Amino acid sequence: MAHLLSTSCSLNIPSCRKPSFQQLNQGLIGLPTSFTVKTSKSPIQTVILSAQRSQRCHTVYATATPFTPTQSRSGLHQSSNDPSKAKRVMIIGGDGYCGWATALHLSNKGYEVAIVDSLIRRLFDHQLGLDSLTPIASIHDRLRCWKSLTGKNIELYIGDICDFEFLSESFKSFEPDAVVHFGEQRSAPYSMIDRSRAVFTQHNNVIGTLNVLFAMKEFRQECHLVKLGTMGEYGTPNIDIEEGYITINHNGRTDTLPYPKQASSFYHLSKVHDSHNIAFTCKAWGIRATDLNQGVVYGVRTDETAMHEELCNRLDYDGVFGTALNRFCVQAAVGHPLTVYGKGGQ
Amino acid sequence: MAHLLSTSCSLNIPSCRKPSFQQLNQGLIGLPTSFTVKTSKSPIQTVILSAQRSQRCHTVYATATPFTPTQSRSGLHQSSNDPSKAKRVMIIGGDGYCGWATALHLSNKGYEVAIVDSLIRRLFDHQLGLDSLTPIASIHDRLRCWKSLTGKNIELYIGDICDFEFLSESFKSFEPDAVVHFGEQRSAPYSMIDRSRAVFTQHNNVIGTLNVLFAMKEFRQECHLVKLGTMGEYGTPNIDIEEGYITINHNGRTDTLPYPKQASSFYHLSKVHDSHNIAFTCKAWGIRATDLNQGVVYGVRTDETAMHEELCNRLDYDGVFGTALNRFCVQAAVGHPLTVYGKGGQ
Repeated sequence: MAHLLSTSCSLNIPSCRKPSFQQLNQGLIGLPTSFTVKTSKSPIQTVILSAQRSQRCHTVYATATPFTPTQSRSGLHQSSNDPSKAKRVMIIGGDGYCGWATALHLSNKGYEVAIVDSLIRRLFDHQLGLDSLTPIASIHDRLRCWKSLTGKNIELYIGDICDFEFLSESFKSFEPDAVVHFGEQRSAPYSMIDRSRAVFTQHNNVIGTLNVLFAMKEFRQECHLVKLGTMGEYGTPNIDIEEGYITINHNGRTDTLPYPKQASSFYHLSKVHDSHNIAFTCKAWGIRATDLNQGVVYGVRTDETAMHEELCNRLDYDGVFGTALNRFCVQAAVGHPLTVYGKGGQ
Repeated sequence: MAHLLSTSCSLNIPSCRKPSFQQLNQGLIGLPTSFTVKTSKSPIQTVILSAQRSQRCHTVYATATPFTPTQSRSGLHQSSNDPSKAKRVMIIGGDGYCGWATALHLSNKGYEVAIVDSLIRRLFDHQLGLDSLTPIASIHDRLRCWKSLTGKNIELYIGDICDFEFLSESFKSFEPDAVVHFGEQRSAPYSMIDRSRAVFTQHNNVIGTLNVLFAMKEFRQECHLVKLGTMGEYGTPNIDIEEGYITINHNGRTDTLPYPKQASSFYHLSKVHDSHNIAFTCKAWGIRATDLNQGVVYGVRTDETAMHEELCNRLDYDGVFGTALNRFCVQAAVGHPLTVYGKGGQ
C-alpha cells in the first residue's frame, strides 16, 4: 500500500509560525512549518536533515540547452532574492493525488508555484486499464481553470526528472526556493507486479531523487527539499518507532543512529534508498532537506479542488493504486463484500 | 575507498567443513564455509540471510532469446542434480581484481566455474587514462592459459547483468548452484567524480543486483548468492559494529533489527541499497544469500595467479581505483612522498 502525505492538511503560512517549530525548520525558507496530517498509523514522522554547508568542492557536469516552459512566467513574478516577495515552490509530481492538492493550496496561499511532472501516472492507468472514480481534467485544463477562477498562474514543466538536462533547465528557469518532491512511483503493489516494474520503481525513484539533489547542489544551494517518504520505511519493529534517529546504548558506549529500516516492497525499499541518499548529501554538501515519513493519506476534497469540477482530485479504488480505505468505501457504497488485506487487521 | 574481499584467502572445500560453521552456512551449497580474510579494519563481517521459502507467487516476465556462450561447455560437465558431482559457481565480475583470483581458486579446487563480466572495468581505465601496475592479459588469453596449464575449463559469458535478457540466458545456460557477485562499480572516488558517475554507480549496482535476485527466483531457486558488500555500509558509529543485526532495548521492549547504515559515498550507499533489497527478497521469496561486509583487500598474488604471467592479477595504484595501501607501497618503492588520506589515520 502506498503511504502519501495527507491532502486534508492544515497549512500555516510563515506569519503564523509556532515558535516551537522554529528550531527544527530553520532551513525551511518560507514554507509552512506545521502540518496537521490525518494518518491511519501514527502521528506524522518528520525527519529534519540539515548540516552546516561544507566548503568541499564537487563538480557536476550537465548539458544545458535552451528550454521553453509550456506556460510563460507570470507578469507578477518577483525576485526570490527579496525576502518580502512570494517564495517560489516547485512541486514535482504536481499532477498527482498529493501534488495537485498541494500545488493549488500553496498557490492559493500566495506562493509562486511550478508543477514539474512527466504525467506518467496517467499512463499507468491506461496501461493497467484503471481510472480514477472521480473524473479528472487534463493538467492543461486544470491550470487554465485555476487561472480563470483565481487569477493565479501555476507554471508547468512537463518532463522526466530522471532526465537531468530537463530537470536542470527547470531549476534554472523557475529558480525554486523550495522543492516538494512527490514525483515517484508510489504504489507498492505496482512495484511487485513483475521484474520490469520493480526495476522501474527503484530506478525512477532513486535516480530521480539523486538528480533533484544534484540540481539543488548545482543551481539552488539555498533551496529546501521536502521529500515524501513513508512510515513503511521502518517496517513493524517490536520497539517504538522514533522520528528518523534512535539513541542506542551498546557495550558501554552510546550513539544516536539512523532508525533501522525494514521495508516490505520494492516501492518501500526505494524510499529507504532515497532516505539514505538524502541523509548523505545533507552531511556531505549541506543540502537542506525534510524527509517526511508519513502514513496513509485519504480524502479527495480540499478547499481548492472543491472550487470547480475541473479542479477535482483523483480517487483511486483499484487494486494497484487504490488504498485499502478507498476500496472499503467504494465497496461499501455499491454493496460489494469488503476485500480482506493481509491478516485483515485494517 | 573500495573495500573488497581478500584474494589472499584460505578456502576450505566442503569435506573440510568446520562443524561450528554448519549452522550459519546451511544454505551454502557446496561452497567454502570458512574464509580467512586479511582486512585492515576488523574481522570479516558476515551477514547470513536466509528464510523459509515462502509459498507466495510472484511472476517474472522476461524475454528469452537464443544465446551462445563464448566458450562451449566442458565435455566433462555433470548435472548439478547429482550431489556427488562438482558444484557450479557463477562468478559475476570474474575478470576483476577479486573475481579473477576467486574464479581461478575455485576452478583449481574442482568447482565448475563460469565468469560473467561486461569487462567495463577495463573501459574505466581507458576512459580515465589509468592502468594496472601489473600487466594483465585479456580475459580470453587468461582463460586459454588456464585451460592449457590445468586442463580446466572456465565458461565465459560477456555481457551486462543490468540486461536481464542476457543474465537470464546465462543462468539458464550455466545453471549455477551458487553465484558469487563481484560485478559492481567498486570505487567510492569514481562514484563521487560527477553526477553521471554517481547515477551510473547506483543504477549499475542496484539494478544489477535486483536482476540477479530475480534470475535466482525465476531460474535457480536453490541457488545461493554470495554478495560483496562493504564494512563502509556501517560508517563509523560510536558503538561496536555487530554483524548485520543489533538487539535494541527501547522503552521497555526489545527487538533485533538491521544494524543502522551510514554510508559515506554514492558507492557505499549503493551497497546499502543492495543489502536492503537482498534482505527483503530473503524474507519475501526465501532467497538464500550471504551478504559479505568486508574491509579493504590487498595483495596481488595467489597460488593460481602466480602460475603464469598471463594469469597475473591487476594492481591498481591510481587515485580512483587504487586503494591507500597500494598507493603507499608504490609511492614508497619509487621514493614519492606518501599521499595523506582524510585525517591521515591510515
